[in-house]
Amino acid sequence: MSADIIPLPKARPTLDPMLALTAQDMNSVNAVILDRMQSEIPLIPALAGHLISGGGKRLRPMLTLAGAELVGYHGSRHHKLAASVEFIHTATLLHDDVVDGSDLRRGKAAANIIFGNPATVLVGDFLFSRAFELMVEDGSLKVLKILSGASAIIAEGEVDQLTAQRQIETSEERYLNIISAKTAALFAAASRISAVVAECDDAQERALDDYGRNLGVAFQLVDDAIDYDSDAAEMGKDQGDDFREGKMTLPVILAYSRGNAADRKFWEAAIAGHRSSDDDLAEAIHLIAKYDAVEDTRQRARHYAHRAIDAISIFPDSKARQAMAEAAQFAVARGY
Amino acid sequence: MSADIIPLPKARPTLDPMLALTAQDMNSVNAVILDRMQSEIPLIPALAGHLISGGGKRLRPMLTLAGAELVGYHGSRHHKLAASVEFIHTATLLHDDVVDGSDLRRGKAAANIIFGNPATVLVGDFLFSRAFELMVEDGSLKVLKILSGASAIIAEGEVDQLTAQRQIETSEERYLNIISAKTAALFAAASRISAVVAECDDAQERALDDYGRNLGVAFQLVDDAIDYDSDAAEMGKDQGDDFREGKMTLPVILAYSRGNAADRKFWEAAIAGHRSSDDDLAEAIHLIAKYDAVEDTRQRARHYAHRAIDAISIFPDSKARQAMAEAAQFAVARGY
Repeated sequence: MSADIIPLPKARPTLDPMLALTAQDMNSVNAVILDRMQSEIPLIPALAGHLISGGGKRLRPMLTLAGAELVGYHGSRHHKLAASVEFIHTATLLHDDVVDGSDLRRGKAAANIIFGNPATVLVGDFLFSRAFELMVEDGSLKVLKILSGASAIIAEGEVDQLTAQRQIETSEERYLNIISAKTAALFAAASRISAVVAECDDAQERALDDYGRNLGVAFQLVDDAIDYDSDAAEMGKDQGDDFREGKMTLPVILAYSRGNAADRKFWEAAIAGHRSSDDDLAEAIHLIAKYDAVEDTRQRARHYAHRAIDAISIFPDSKARQAMAEAAQFAVARGY
Repeated sequence: MSADIIPLPKARPTLDPMLALTAQDMNSVNAVILDRMQSEIPLIPALAGHLISGGGKRLRPMLTLAGAELVGYHGSRHHKLAASVEFIHTATLLHDDVVDGSDLRRGKAAANIIFGNPATVLVGDFLFSRAFELMVEDGSLKVLKILSGASAIIAEGEVDQLTAQRQIETSEERYLNIISAKTAALFAAASRISAVVAECDDAQERALDDYGRNLGVAFQLVDDAIDYDSDAAEMGKDQGDDFREGKMTLPVILAYSRGNAADRKFWEAAIAGHRSSDDDLAEAIHLIAKYDAVEDTRQRARHYAHRAIDAISIFPDSKARQAMAEAAQFAVARGY
């Protein structure tokens, strides 16, 4: 085991090495996903397929596959489990779209817009159940414990986020708790279960958990930064959604705490929902730029990306480790 | 093993013997429920508690407890599992209220009315995850398979019901498929897992599954009859909800198929949502009474109740068997 750190930063990190590393296994995962989202009730594959074939990056199952490469796992159990992870993620996206009243998801009309809230809630429930059926078929109680625990934490994080919505006094600490739960818990679990199927020791299992968790935090931080980044090239959701929903994300928390009295007045009104026009959004983006809040949110993300990379430094250098390290760099740099 | 059938009907069957049979164990189940619906996010126990302490009969966990009595199980594993069953049920109720836009549940304002749809969806997800955590703690993959399978079937049934909504051509066959999935699957699973923890043989496990499944069908049939029964004493939900939502339940299916041309015109308009006033509801109740559709729906329920009672006739006569038989009679007679 070498403890060396893979050098940061790289000019333009991409997800390509990770995609190449996992491409073949991902075909198997996709086959499981397609097979297991079927149902005799035609609305289920129609609705699930709308989102599942909607161009997501499959980042979470990719973590399971990459982790398996990292630890030299040679079986195929991780295919079903990675599909299970993607089903859990898809279920939460469907429910999120209902909760947020989203119009767009991955650049297409959100499922709730096309199929309505009722079907979207219920198909989410179906996929969630299917996720557990896949885990049960695999038969590892340890994996079941990790993923059922993560699911409960995700739901807690989502409820917590809802409670913090339109609450201008939300602290960076609380925000970090929320994104750790709603996003990073599944990244951590997805990554960790690769060590479980490979029967790694506890330290390796924890290392993969830490990698996923820190990567998840970095990923969400940058997601939240992009929503206020006027230079952002990558746009998964409608820019300004967080603003209009009064979500207290880090760019807002930083701009509010650094702002003068007039700025704070603006944020208080905006987060309360009294200023949500396009001009107001432009003002928000202006203030966030003025106080370097996008750049500093990325800076925070860089910290977690470094921790993710360090976490896997207990494993010997390999193509897999390099790809996973570059994925962490990519998480920070994307959207530039 | 005697194959005798406990005599039907009894003047006024009640749930009392079943309640008495399971009272002590139910205290333990309630303790698990209260303990495991807690969270550091205060909105979660507040919302979950609104429904959980809202006077439900705890019928599904009661099936697990009664089944355990029937087969002479003396451990305590069924307490956690019965709580898990109730959490799955509670999660589906919360999501149902969002799906149906319900105003009332168990005679109180529905959770979605007090806490809003977003929180109601997410707390449902939380309880669903907690249900799986409880099963994982118990550690039986067989139980996990039964309950994850039931959960997927419930979701399919709910989606199917949604698809059949406002479709006047829905057949009795399709209606039975829907209620078998959305209601009876969990009754069957709740009952069956008692045989699993007691390590019964396959025939006994199947018998308990059959008991629960038939009871569930009977129960849902009567639920749907009560919604159009002008004499109904028991009112869990708003009378007329099914009518206004255009749900194709058996009373409507029977009245429609038996009606004359004018009646059918009425039903077509009503189920399509064009006739939903109080006068229209009164007309619906009138037509359903005219064609004996409530009484015949109860008659159908009686058939399933008999099958439930026969299913457990493979077990020797006991207080438990008698209580379970009377519960099946009660399922048919309630609301009178």
